[in-house]
Amino acid sequence: MPQEKTNHSNASPYLSELTLDCVILSFHEDCLKVLLLRWKGTQEWSLPGGPIRRNEAVDAAANRILKERTGLDDIFLQQFHVFGEVERYNREGIKYKLKHLIDPDKWYERAVSVGYYALVDHAKAMPTPDPFTEQCAWWDVQQIPALLFDHNRIIQVARKALRTQLSWQPIGYNLLPEKFTLPELQRLYEAILGKGLDPRNFQRKMLSLGILERLAERRRGGAFKSPYLYRFKKEEYELKLKESNLFFS
Amino acid sequence: MPQEKTNHSNASPYLSELTLDCVILSFHEDCLKVLLLRWKGTQEWSLPGGPIRRNEAVDAAANRILKERTGLDDIFLQQFHVFGEVERYNREGIKYKLKHLIDPDKWYERAVSVGYYALVDHAKAMPTPDPFTEQCAWWDVQQIPALLFDHNRIIQVARKALRTQLSWQPIGYNLLPEKFTLPELQRLYEAILGKGLDPRNFQRKMLSLGILERLAERRRGGAFKSPYLYRFKKEEYELKLKESNLFFS
Repeated sequence: MPQEKTNHSNASPYLSELTLDCVILSFHEDCLKVLLLRWKGTQEWSLPGGPIRRNEAVDAAANRILKERTGLDDIFLQQFHVFGEVERYNREGIKYKLKHLIDPDKWYERAVSVGYYALVDHAKAMPTPDPFTEQCAWWDVQQIPALLFDHNRIIQVARKALRTQLSWQPIGYNLLPEKFTLPELQRLYEAILGKGLDPRNFQRKMLSLGILERLAERRRGGAFKSPYLYRFKKEEYELKLKESNLFFS
Repeated sequence: MPQEKTNHSNASPYLSELTLDCVILSFHEDCLKVLLLRWKGTQEWSLPGGPIRRNEAVDAAANRILKERTGLDDIFLQQFHVFGEVERYNREGIKYKLKHLIDPDKWYERAVSVGYYALVDHAKAMPTPDPFTEQCAWWDVQQIPALLFDHNRIIQVARKALRTQLSWQPIGYNLLPEKFTLPELQRLYEAILGKGLDPRNFQRKMLSLGILERLAERRRGGAFKSPYLYRFKKEEYELKLKESNLFFS
C-alpha cells in the first residue's frame, strides 16, 4: 500500500519504526538459560536486540545480532511474535534510567519489535556485550530479574512459542551433546514445557518420531541402571523439521 | 534502542515502514477459501491489507482491516510471519501496473509486512472491497491466480503456519456449523493439511483431545450409514487453545 513518500536521503541508516529483540536460549545443567545484557554503569538488564539497517532483511538483522552476541552462525532462529503496542513500556522511566547513555531526545517515536528466539549450544556460545552494555551473561529462566523495556513479557511469549514448537518440530539438536540419554532429552523437554512428563509416554512419543538412533553404548556411573545413549538421525530430524506437524504426522 | 529522531510532525498518519497483509480463510463446500481483492480497472488480485496508524497497535490494525473487509469482529487472528526482505517483489512492475491508481512517487521506500491469518465463518463474512479495489471475493486456495506483490508467497507461508497450528490448537470452531460429523471435521483438517488422513487415527486423536461432544442426532440422508453429529465443548476447546501443545498434552 502506498502513502506520502518520506525523504530518507539524510535519515538514519536504520529503519526508524522497527527493531528486533532476540531471546537466545541454551540448556545447561538441566536448566533453560537465556542470554541477557547489563547496561553500562547500571544494574539494568535487557535482552539482546537492536535496529535493522535500511538495506538489511529483518531475518538477516536477527542473524547479525545473534552472531554479534554469541559468535555463532547458522543457528535455528525463529520469529515468534511482533510486539506492536503503541506504548510497549514506560518510555519516560527508561529514558531516565539510561539518560547517561542515550540522549532522551534521540529515542524512537514508536518502535515495533520483531521477537526472535534462538536455541544455541551453551558450550559454543561466547556471550559478548554490545556498545550500550558491559556484561553479557546466561540467566536461568526461572531467576530472571525485572528487565528493561517489555523484555520480561517478550521472554514469556517466547517460552510459550517454544512450548508450541515442541508440538510441530523436534528440539534438541543444538541444545544437547551429540550423544544423550532419553532421560536427558526428557529433562530438556520438561524444562521447555515447564512441567513433568510421564517417562514412558515421553519415550513412546519421541521414539515414534523415528528421529532417534539408539547406540550400543550406555551412560556409565549413574546411580541407577545405566541408560542407553541415543543420537539424532540428522536426515530424519531435518524431515520432521519440514513437516510442520507432529500431532498429525 | 535509540537512534536519530525523525520529525513526524508533518508526516503521514501511518507508519512509513510497516504494513499488514491478512490471509482471511473460510471453509465452504469442503474447500479452503481465501479472500482476495481485485484492484480498480484491472484484473490484478491481492490479499487484503494496508497501513498501520501511528497511534494504533499492530494487532488492532489487523482487526480493523479484518472488520473492514468482512464486517466481522472478535475473530481468531494469528500473526504468522514478518515479511522483511529488502526487495519483496518487483516494485517497478507493480508501480507500472497500478500507476492509474497510485502516483509512482508515493510508494513506500521499503515496507516490512506483518502477516496475519484469520479463520472466519463463510456464511457470516460480507466481502467488501477497499478504496483501491472494486471486487472482494473468495477464491479456492487450490485455484489462486498470480497475485500482486509477494502475496502468493504470503499465502503459502500462511498455509504452512495453519498446518502447524493443527498440532498445537484445535481448529474448527469458527469454520464449521455448530453441529458436524467427524467426516466433515476430517475434511476440514485434510483441506488444511493438504493430505488425506486415516479416518480411525483421525477420530482417535480428535476424540482424545476431549473437546468433542457426541449428540444423540445423526446426519440423515447420506449414502452410507448415518454418522453421529458432534459439537465442540466450548470450555474444553478454550482450554486446549491455551495449552499451546497437543503432542505433549
